[in-house]
Amino acid sequence: MRDPRYDILFEPVKIGPVTAKNRFFQVPHCNGMGHGMPESHAAMREVKAEGGWAVVSTEECEIHPSGDVSPYVEARLWDDHDIPALKLMCDKVHAHGGLAAVELTHNGPTASNLFSREVLIAPSHQPSKYGYPAQARGMDMEDIRNYRRWHREAAIRGKKAGFDIIYVYAAHDLSLAMHFLQKRRNHRTDEYGGSLENRARLLKEVLIDTKEAVGDTCGVALRFAVDELIGAGGITVEEAKDVVAMVAEIPDLWDVNLAAWYNDSIPSRFAPEGAQEPFINWVKSLTTKPVVGVGRFTSPDTMVSQIRRGVIDMIGAARPSIADPFLPKKIEDGRVEDIRECIGCNICVSGDMTITPIRCTQNPSMGEEWRKGWHPDRIRKAESDARILVVGAGPAGLEATRALGSRGYEVHLAEATRVLGGRVDREAKLPGLAEWGRVRDWRVGQIDKLTNVSVYRESPLAADDILEFGASHVVVATGSRWRADAFGRSAHAPVISEGTPNVLTPDDIMDGAALKGHVVIYDDDYFYMASVMAEVAAKAGCSVTLVTSDDTVASWSSNTLDYRHIMKRLHKVGVKMLPSLSLTGWDGAKAAFEHSWSGAEEVVSGDIIIPVTMRLPNDGLYLDLKARAADWADAGIASVKVIGDAEAPGLIAHAVYAGHRYAQELDGPDRGEVKFRRHLHTAVTP
Amino acid sequence: MRDPRYDILFEPVKIGPVTAKNRFFQVPHCNGMGHGMPESHAAMREVKAEGGWAVVSTEECEIHPSGDVSPYVEARLWDDHDIPALKLMCDKVHAHGGLAAVELTHNGPTASNLFSREVLIAPSHQPSKYGYPAQARGMDMEDIRNYRRWHREAAIRGKKAGFDIIYVYAAHDLSLAMHFLQKRRNHRTDEYGGSLENRARLLKEVLIDTKEAVGDTCGVALRFAVDELIGAGGITVEEAKDVVAMVAEIPDLWDVNLAAWYNDSIPSRFAPEGAQEPFINWVKSLTTKPVVGVGRFTSPDTMVSQIRRGVIDMIGAARPSIADPFLPKKIEDGRVEDIRECIGCNICVSGDMTITPIRCTQNPSMGEEWRKGWHPDRIRKAESDARILVVGAGPAGLEATRALGSRGYEVHLAEATRVLGGRVDREAKLPGLAEWGRVRDWRVGQIDKLTNVSVYRESPLAADDILEFGASHVVVATGSRWRADAFGRSAHAPVISEGTPNVLTPDDIMDGAALKGHVVIYDDDYFYMASVMAEVAAKAGCSVTLVTSDDTVASWSSNTLDYRHIMKRLHKVGVKMLPSLSLTGWDGAKAAFEHSWSGAEEVVSGDIIIPVTMRLPNDGLYLDLKARAADWADAGIASVKVIGDAEAPGLIAHAVYAGHRYAQELDGPDRGEVKFRRHLHTAVTP
Repeated sequence: MRDPRYDILFEPVKIGPVTAKNRFFQVPHCNGMGHGMPESHAAMREVKAEGGWAVVSTEECEIHPSGDVSPYVEARLWDDHDIPALKLMCDKVHAHGGLAAVELTHNGPTASNLFSREVLIAPSHQPSKYGYPAQARGMDMEDIRNYRRWHREAAIRGKKAGFDIIYVYAAHDLSLAMHFLQKRRNHRTDEYGGSLENRARLLKEVLIDTKEAVGDTCGVALRFAVDELIGAGGITVEEAKDVVAMVAEIPDLWDVNLAAWYNDSIPSRFAPEGAQEPFINWVKSLTTKPVVGVGRFTSPDTMVSQIRRGVIDMIGAARPSIADPFLPKKIEDGRVEDIRECIGCNICVSGDMTITPIRCTQNPSMGEEWRKGWHPDRIRKAESDARILVVGAGPAGLEATRALGSRGYEVHLAEATRVLGGRVDREAKLPGLAEWGRVRDWRVGQIDKLTNVSVYRESPLAADDILEFGASHVVVATGSRWRADAFGRSAHAPVISEGTPNVLTPDDIMDGAALKGHVVIYDDDYFYMASVMAEVAAKAGCSVTLVTSDDTVASWSSNTLDYRHIMKRLHKVGVKMLPSLSLTGWDGAKAAFEHSWSGAEEVVSGDIIIPVTMRLPNDGLYLDLKARAADWADAGIASVKVIGDAEAPGLIAHAVYAGHRYAQELDGPDRGEVKFRRHLHTAVTP
Repeated sequence: MRDPRYDILFEPVKIGPVTAKNRFFQVPHCNGMGHGMPESHAAMREVKAEGGWAVVSTEECEIHPSGDVSPYVEARLWDDHDIPALKLMCDKVHAHGGLAAVELTHNGPTASNLFSREVLIAPSHQPSKYGYPAQARGMDMEDIRNYRRWHREAAIRGKKAGFDIIYVYAAHDLSLAMHFLQKRRNHRTDEYGGSLENRARLLKEVLIDTKEAVGDTCGVALRFAVDELIGAGGITVEEAKDVVAMVAEIPDLWDVNLAAWYNDSIPSRFAPEGAQEPFINWVKSLTTKPVVGVGRFTSPDTMVSQIRRGVIDMIGAARPSIADPFLPKKIEDGRVEDIRECIGCNICVSGDMTITPIRCTQNPSMGEEWRKGWHPDRIRKAESDARILVVGAGPAGLEATRALGSRGYEVHLAEATRVLGGRVDREAKLPGLAEWGRVRDWRVGQIDKLTNVSVYRESPLAADDILEFGASHVVVATGSRWRADAFGRSAHAPVISEGTPNVLTPDDIMDGAALKGHVVIYDDDYFYMASVMAEVAAKAGCSVTLVTSDDTVASWSSNTLDYRHIMKRLHKVGVKMLPSLSLTGWDGAKAAFEHSWSGAEEVVSGDIIIPVTMRLPNDGLYLDLKARAADWADAGIASVKVIGDAEAPGLIAHAVYAGHRYAQELDGPDRGEVKFRRHLHTAVTP
């Protein structure tokens, strides 16, 4: 079954007293469920173990109320009351032969304590990180002793919960063990400050503490940031090398990466697979312990290469394990072409950022394992011999077709154009977004294998065609189009009259419309599209002004870790940015704006304007069909549904989810108004 | 006991089939606990009922998963599983003779559905409100029928939970019933769109539905926004009058206010008590039903005046009921001078905004009723005859003194200056912040009544003095001072060398330092202080440039609803704003900055720079005492603690909390590392 080239990936790896059954290591990652939804969390981790990951880790795990990161919902081991919630996960991981790991941390000045109301602590007096209006106090010797005790006690609680690997965390600028290392955060004059040796003292002590506390039966891992990429103000690779040398053999495993999170989990728009290699490829030369590294690895060949070349020993992954929890198993089973590759869009990250359960563009079952019983690699069999017509081969239509086909239904997919993929195909041609095409590629590849699915290209359908087709169910997934009239968040009314010259929508740009001169981009959408349009225009040699009704550019992109990279790139390519201006008119050559706060009018001249405000569903066909509802029965049609952007334009993730949901729910039981199980939050401590 | 002038406030009011025992009405308010912490929530509402509020309401209550406002944690009645959590509250409110009210809503396009993953719905296709990257679909007739059914079913569930009053919600731009009214959100061409009568149809239907469903035993209230203050794009007072006239007698009670939330709960910096009167004073002329209005009422004379003049029938309050849950009882008991008046700082709002439990600057027990057992009007008796010395009469020291004194301890408060209040006294003199002085006034007033407390002004103490004093416990609450060197979030190192001319800190300004010419304010703090400094400078006739290292000005102030008002005011007074610039130097006449994203240097000339970056604790005395720990026993000192800004500078709320916590915990049991009860989130639906 397995290609022998990949055998090396399935070698066991010893991590102190425990042994990983292969080299696949799901490194800690946030998920927006954490201690708030323990059953959801455990089931999500379980599918990773089932899918072949030898090690499955939690997200960061708070060890003490003074390191409370609320409202972010991570793991928690404040006291013994927190053990049962995490035991759920350990039991499920063990049931599939996996090792469970917990990433202990105290976030120090990067905590909030908004829930616990404790005073923040830090190596020295300093502001808290995220703009919270409370400073952290510099720790005294008693605080340091307490911190070490809390970490030790949490390690023991982790062991009690069933964890096989206990992490010490010194990465992402999110851990006191790292904050002590940082010259900028550590201004101490005692034995914990000053020289690097002094600044590393606490990390070393905590590593030894943890080994002593639980090292008899648990592996002790160190997650360590080798570079903050901020120059001398941060941890540099030179310092990192010295730190690794100082404690090289103390941890049983090194898990190395870049800080902060936006550099570690960089979106595919800004870096390719394996981008961390040049930063971490020296670690193995300084330690004999196994080294885990990440790089959004989805290619088994890349993985083998990294191991053979001695870059890393274990394939660390967060995002690839989210997009496909069964990635290792598919390699093991010789189903490499079935791997659902991560597209690096970082919608997964937005779950943590918005404090809601993790979701994934590629894997619509992510976050639904417990509450809806969805599985990333299995789906229940068809429960009727219904014949389903899917209209539109964008992300919603492709996923509905694939999932319905997997269930065993007879599915017919009709696409008006020659190409499959819809918006995914179009957007993947924009600068930086090529990997998004994997949403199309995986589905088309899977559909190709299904003999019960027929695909018709260049087949635009009207209501009459559909009524004649003979389908039991019709799914309309005809996508959406960008508005040209600048109706949007700021103006719930058309701003640009139809026919006004020199207006191009993002659709026009994706269709290849030519740009010239000075391009004004108006962003009322707040996510990626306007910034991508700005890149297109800059690449076309235009001067570009990006105006937004928001007070910052691309504000929602902070939820996907794009924000900083977008800002740097737009400045680099010379885009001028004007925030807090709402479009009030465009006469073909001049755009007029009203300032959000002063009310003043501002005018910007331009050769072309690209309004990026909102989209309109292509729901004409659906409305036509609804108007013919009286004819459905005669046509044998039991239902007509509209899904994806054709229902309500959203993310590609929303479209894939809508397609999957349609397939999951067909012929399913009526679950009432709440379609999923929930945590009720009524259990309390004594 | 009660002043007869206030008798009118204690007249009962009939609300349909139920009767409020007096005119005090705690209108719905968010609290950051909601369905996530039902026990905490119920206990918080209970103290309102105990304190004399005749009606105690929930926050907004979601009626359906398609109106999910996650991550914001409000009430929830999606199905019968949600009844027990809210029954907790009803039982507790009833135990004190109060009526419980629930504010049902479906947020439509102002929901997120980030948790439920349902498709957003709205009167017409439109973007979601808060920048979420998913649009709402226009509702069809089936959606409207469903929405009415969901609302009816939720009303019945509310009745089952024990609520006496069921709200229909059409306020704050947060409810479909209001969204249908709005021309900008409702572009329908059917009987639910177009004319005002059509746009009001759904509101009227839902009111009637609710009356039919639960009106036999429950009062039905309507919360209605009479003006959005955005001109013709929003609901205007003219339209509002027509709406009131249309449905005047259908609800059993009108609860009227301004939209959106930032206009309704406007901070005291921007509007005084009773500011809504001119907007709502016509409502009673159009209906015979009782009318509730709000206005941050804390003065019983103002309340009586509003009622006698026919403005309102019931005293609506959110913030005043948070600052003092016992406000009605204190009026009833003739203890008007004991009322702990709301200061309008809106720290309460930041709980909802940051998805963490509500807290209050004035009332440190807010949010702690269940988890710590703190009570807003009672505190357990002293458990020893300890003699306590409090050093420093700022918010922390005053509250520690007051609460320790209330417990019965012998307390000595030593203040170095002539005035009590510390930073509160100083900041209350800044433009717009006068009401913050109530933090001082209430505590000084309470302390004056305590015969076991001695206050010493102009009494700076050194370690020697304290060792000689003969205290069992010493509390150091010596405050903090703003750094002059621009060390802060962006630069964890001094940026301005000591002695560089023309540098003033916020402390210098509060001390009356003169401003002249062009003032550069550098904000690395992100809350209110820099914007207040800008106002001071503008008032002094200076030209002002406010530079911030953040990408927006005063970003944290969005959590207190200040943000929009700050932006408008700063533009109005002509402050120039330059975001995304971190200070790299000041030579006495020129400030150099580095741009966050381009890295470019920018230079701004100025006559004075005011760095608003961070503060340093005034912890010299504490450190001196710690260095003398060996002498404590001989001096009879059992403990020395540092609290408030002297420990870690934060909000006034943090300082008051620290003082209160000290008093609560003295001689208390050791509760381990987690000092409070918690919800564990392990209960689930079947």
